[in-house]
Amino acid sequence: MTVQQGQRLNQDELTRIDAYWRALNYLSAGQIYLLDNPLLAEPLRPEHIKPRLLGHWGTTPGLNFVLAHLNRAILAHDLDMMYVLGPGHGGPAAFAHAWLEGSYTEAYPGVTRDADGMRQLFRQFSFPGGVPSHVSPDVPGSIHEGGELGYSLAHAFGAAFDNPDLIVACVVGDGEAETGPLAASWHANKFLDPVHDGAVLPILHLNGYKIANPTVLARIPEEELDALFHGYGYAPRYVTESDPARAHQAMARAVDSCVAEIRRIQTEARTGNGRPRWPMIVLRTPKGWTGPAEVDGKPVEGTWRSHQVPLANVRENPAHLRQLEEWLRSYRPEELFDADGRPQPAVRALVPARRMSANPHANGGLLRRPLRLPDYRRYAVPVAKPGASRAAPTQVLGAMLRDVVRLNARYRNFRVFGPDETESNRLGAVYEATGKAWQEATLPTDEHLARDGRVMEILSEHLCEGWLEGYLLTGRHGVFSCYEAFIHIVDSMVNQHSKWLKVSRRLAWRRPISSLNLLLTSHVWRQDHNGFSHQDPGFIDHVVNKWPEVVRVYLPPDTNTLLSVADHCLRSTDLINVIVAGKNPSFDWLDVEQAELHCARGIGIWPWAGTPEDQTEPDVVLACAGDVPTLEVLAAADILRQHLPDLRLRVVNVVDLMRLRPAGEHPHGLADREFDALFTTDKPVVFAYHGYP
Amino acid sequence: MTVQQGQRLNQDELTRIDAYWRALNYLSAGQIYLLDNPLLAEPLRPEHIKPRLLGHWGTTPGLNFVLAHLNRAILAHDLDMMYVLGPGHGGPAAFAHAWLEGSYTEAYPGVTRDADGMRQLFRQFSFPGGVPSHVSPDVPGSIHEGGELGYSLAHAFGAAFDNPDLIVACVVGDGEAETGPLAASWHANKFLDPVHDGAVLPILHLNGYKIANPTVLARIPEEELDALFHGYGYAPRYVTESDPARAHQAMARAVDSCVAEIRRIQTEARTGNGRPRWPMIVLRTPKGWTGPAEVDGKPVEGTWRSHQVPLANVRENPAHLRQLEEWLRSYRPEELFDADGRPQPAVRALVPARRMSANPHANGGLLRRPLRLPDYRRYAVPVAKPGASRAAPTQVLGAMLRDVVRLNARYRNFRVFGPDETESNRLGAVYEATGKAWQEATLPTDEHLARDGRVMEILSEHLCEGWLEGYLLTGRHGVFSCYEAFIHIVDSMVNQHSKWLKVSRRLAWRRPISSLNLLLTSHVWRQDHNGFSHQDPGFIDHVVNKWPEVVRVYLPPDTNTLLSVADHCLRSTDLINVIVAGKNPSFDWLDVEQAELHCARGIGIWPWAGTPEDQTEPDVVLACAGDVPTLEVLAAADILRQHLPDLRLRVVNVVDLMRLRPAGEHPHGLADREFDALFTTDKPVVFAYHGYP
Repeated sequence: MTVQQGQRLNQDELTRIDAYWRALNYLSAGQIYLLDNPLLAEPLRPEHIKPRLLGHWGTTPGLNFVLAHLNRAILAHDLDMMYVLGPGHGGPAAFAHAWLEGSYTEAYPGVTRDADGMRQLFRQFSFPGGVPSHVSPDVPGSIHEGGELGYSLAHAFGAAFDNPDLIVACVVGDGEAETGPLAASWHANKFLDPVHDGAVLPILHLNGYKIANPTVLARIPEEELDALFHGYGYAPRYVTESDPARAHQAMARAVDSCVAEIRRIQTEARTGNGRPRWPMIVLRTPKGWTGPAEVDGKPVEGTWRSHQVPLANVRENPAHLRQLEEWLRSYRPEELFDADGRPQPAVRALVPARRMSANPHANGGLLRRPLRLPDYRRYAVPVAKPGASRAAPTQVLGAMLRDVVRLNARYRNFRVFGPDETESNRLGAVYEATGKAWQEATLPTDEHLARDGRVMEILSEHLCEGWLEGYLLTGRHGVFSCYEAFIHIVDSMVNQHSKWLKVSRRLAWRRPISSLNLLLTSHVWRQDHNGFSHQDPGFIDHVVNKWPEVVRVYLPPDTNTLLSVADHCLRSTDLINVIVAGKNPSFDWLDVEQAELHCARGIGIWPWAGTPEDQTEPDVVLACAGDVPTLEVLAAADILRQHLPDLRLRVVNVVDLMRLRPAGEHPHGLADREFDALFTTDKPVVFAYHGYP
Repeated sequence: MTVQQGQRLNQDELTRIDAYWRALNYLSAGQIYLLDNPLLAEPLRPEHIKPRLLGHWGTTPGLNFVLAHLNRAILAHDLDMMYVLGPGHGGPAAFAHAWLEGSYTEAYPGVTRDADGMRQLFRQFSFPGGVPSHVSPDVPGSIHEGGELGYSLAHAFGAAFDNPDLIVACVVGDGEAETGPLAASWHANKFLDPVHDGAVLPILHLNGYKIANPTVLARIPEEELDALFHGYGYAPRYVTESDPARAHQAMARAVDSCVAEIRRIQTEARTGNGRPRWPMIVLRTPKGWTGPAEVDGKPVEGTWRSHQVPLANVRENPAHLRQLEEWLRSYRPEELFDADGRPQPAVRALVPARRMSANPHANGGLLRRPLRLPDYRRYAVPVAKPGASRAAPTQVLGAMLRDVVRLNARYRNFRVFGPDETESNRLGAVYEATGKAWQEATLPTDEHLARDGRVMEILSEHLCEGWLEGYLLTGRHGVFSCYEAFIHIVDSMVNQHSKWLKVSRRLAWRRPISSLNLLLTSHVWRQDHNGFSHQDPGFIDHVVNKWPEVVRVYLPPDTNTLLSVADHCLRSTDLINVIVAGKNPSFDWLDVEQAELHCARGIGIWPWAGTPEDQTEPDVVLACAGDVPTLEVLAAADILRQHLPDLRLRVVNVVDLMRLRPAGEHPHGLADREFDALFTTDKPVVFAYHGYP
């Protein structure tokens, strides 16, 4: 679809939006370069320049352009809107936007919205002790870390689920668009219910280059590009301009057209039916737009050379310094800020009441409602004595999760995610309470598909993880169940989320969000029928390297301990909980009271499994963590008791792996004294562990 | 493009291809079910059935259909063709195909192409001590492990690079197509040079379901599907049939049309120019095709219920046993095999001389030519004394890699892969010898783009890794350079490759392939300007968990040691070499002779850094591994020597991390005696290490 010709903005509106964009651009370039003299009150001198210039200019003016236009649309249409910036290396844009909207000062009162604050804003950027050059949890309004590329659209959809009035504008960079996770994410529209979910407005930003190369989507023929997004199920609007005035008109038309179409789709779906073809924008602008056109005789604006710092030797090279000053003055800061550095009324006019930088969805803890949980003891299996009965742990958990869905149905704030493994992982009881989200055609043989289903299944661990992260970051709850071996697919995503949690926990204004609950089943010890490909318990090692404050690993040995662990994890906040549990019928060891006590302690002696009379002074300690290792240790203990009746055996089981770390290293760590009380100081310990040594 | 109507196969050809397909289907179902009575010489009895039924039928008949048709095309057009099977959980298809072609017996003489061998083939499948249910290195003709989904198309393109006469037929499952890596892989056509590379023929197999759900691509409107692949740059041919005879005609037409189009594109490109739009096939057939239509009153063929074992209780349930026998007999085995179980001439007629199961590209070691390497000493930086000069390690390595490209240019068997980071990682000297592969439009401002470039840059670590794996598995060489933090994106791919190497090293008929060389730079210690997102040294931990025989980790402390390590890695086979090295100018410690000796030892005392007179009896050992930790330890040693001149210091540097493992655990491990000689038995050791503790 081509955006209609004709004007959209009158001269006033055009002037205003251009001023806002120039203000963002000025504040962005200032962050990259200036240590002092923020308003250019005097001619630039080398000592005004940062000694080390580090930041990414290339994508920034395009992001600023989008942010300005989204603000205009919020004002014009009274929208509940938040953003996700895929090219998050353009950190200056997000910091500038939050500062200009006043939200930055609300979060960091020291950084005032005046000349002093502007100096602070500039200085702190990419500076020791300051803020990173990428979008990070430090930015009010963002739920998306800008370091590793590929997850913006998945986060955006996660944020839109169950928020029917929200529009999540998601800028996708053309570099990021080459990644696998992003390429798969376009299909997330097949899982977005126009009735109960909000909308995602993807804005594919083709600025043509990644670090040093052209991008694929910017160079394929336009008809292929159009076919591609048509094929992905979108109706693209194109904005292809380098002249700012024309670009403003075209972008305003495109955004208005998208907003109208989103409303039309939602109204139609909410009053009847119809398969949506969601709108999106393809924005083609020069990389490093409005920056230096040429430097040292080489083209910079519109090429990959503008990716980072277009003028690199400003302190040493007077010509570069002069060029920087011309560039900065080209934004006419004197029109944008008053003498005290406060944004002029014309600029402030584009700050909507519903600021994206203060949208509560982007600080999800503000909206988070604790999950209503059933009493997990209700699902407990009776255990007359250890090892006398068997149950399938995840199957029993499935019944509990079903009731979690039911108890929270009216709040629509809990979902279950899995790469088409929910049934295989024996959590199928949830289908008694809800369906699997699905917007496409259905056949009579299909089961459990529903437009508003709360189980999200796509054969992409990346999307499951990204959706769940977006859902949690906007204040909701969820569980991602996955085969243990294949969770490595999202190693790097879990890394990034753990870093997000680590940083955001230090920020008082960011409220706690629900924990990321990863249920790993179909684990390494039960893969007889699959190839060698399905075996890898290394994810535990991967997460335990992360910051101890945010990581928990649980290895419940049986069904009742799994229930207790799950209950605990679903209540927790700001953590990554890894639960490793089997799905096949296996022996029950603890009744529910014992399980509760054992989980509360995290580690404990199982007197009934050892030689009871000798618990104070064992000859050997047999320890175990994980369901299959526990079974093996108990079998070994049984054999030893029969064949070596004089041997004094102690069996120790570990549910909470972090109990094994020293108390100084992890909040769950055991004190040395406690450790010695369990494992003795001088007796041999045989440890059967689920994972790698 | 729609395939033209009309017949393609005459009655004889149709009979022959159907017989071949039936033979593959019979052999596939046999593998899943039968312990004995392979030819159904007597009525099926429960004891003929395996006690545990484990395997995936659903995708298998479709794979068999494709394999039969590819064989026909090889015969008809004398093609050099190999396959990659994305839905590799359909292992029975690949085993059946290799057995029927005689290649299985060549690799495993005990499994003869007769009734005895057929019994063996059936028994071993998914059986303790046998072969896995997924396609694995055990299968002659495969380069692709069938466990974790998503990498088939990347492997196929990797195999096609620099093999101008090869066609790599790649079946992409509709489940796999939902993964991120696969969604991005379609764009690999932008990097395939029709002049110097071979062709990839993607066959998207829409059988409609993954494990328990419909698939996205099978359910979107057909015009969207067509637009999507048009947008990806392909010209799809559709085969949508469930009637076998009509399906054979349609598939034969589609394959012939693709082969003709591939030849047209290649001829045109090789004699002139023209941007190719490569053909592909979209094959829509029922899941579990030709299997039981209904079981216990529920539809199975054509639904997700056929994903694994359609009839689950054959031993216990006489009706199921009867239904299985009917199903197996529906393939009319008596027409396909003689009384001794040997394939009848009509079946053997579809085995081409150029068997895919014996294609040497699929056992790349057969074709591997050792890389011609320059004398790395030529690139060494002069080191008058330790710490007196500085060099940028990867920049110097870049010059060496440039000459590796040049020395092997005529063999076209070496490529450099990176997610748009080759220049950023300071390997830019390679552009003096070759360009960056790129088939799309170019602009005057572009640099180093070339249709036949040997540097592969796409912003997808998944594609870089997958391409390189495919390239190595078909007998070539390469290096993948990546930011250290982001290599976690391919954790699970490196896992799978390490498993492939582990298994294939046990198979005498699989010849050694070049090692997977991962150069991790822009590492954790030099990320001042980036956000917290860029920091994670955990990949080392991830790989050291793998099988010790296949994993090496090198932490060269300076430029000359990096050269020596790189030279060693480029010569090695069947390993995963992880090299962590800096890109920024840093101190040189060792001249090239010292570097060579140090690297040969992998670990050693640096006498000049400690207190030389006291090397035999130090008070403390300062050890280091990694460039920045080495710098820090040397600085610490310097301070200590000044302030505590009486302290006897020893400095130990580790290049080869595996030297630190016990000799019994890793082939590079130090014997206890050697370890004690370096670290003493009783003195404190301070270890500065690059990664996590």
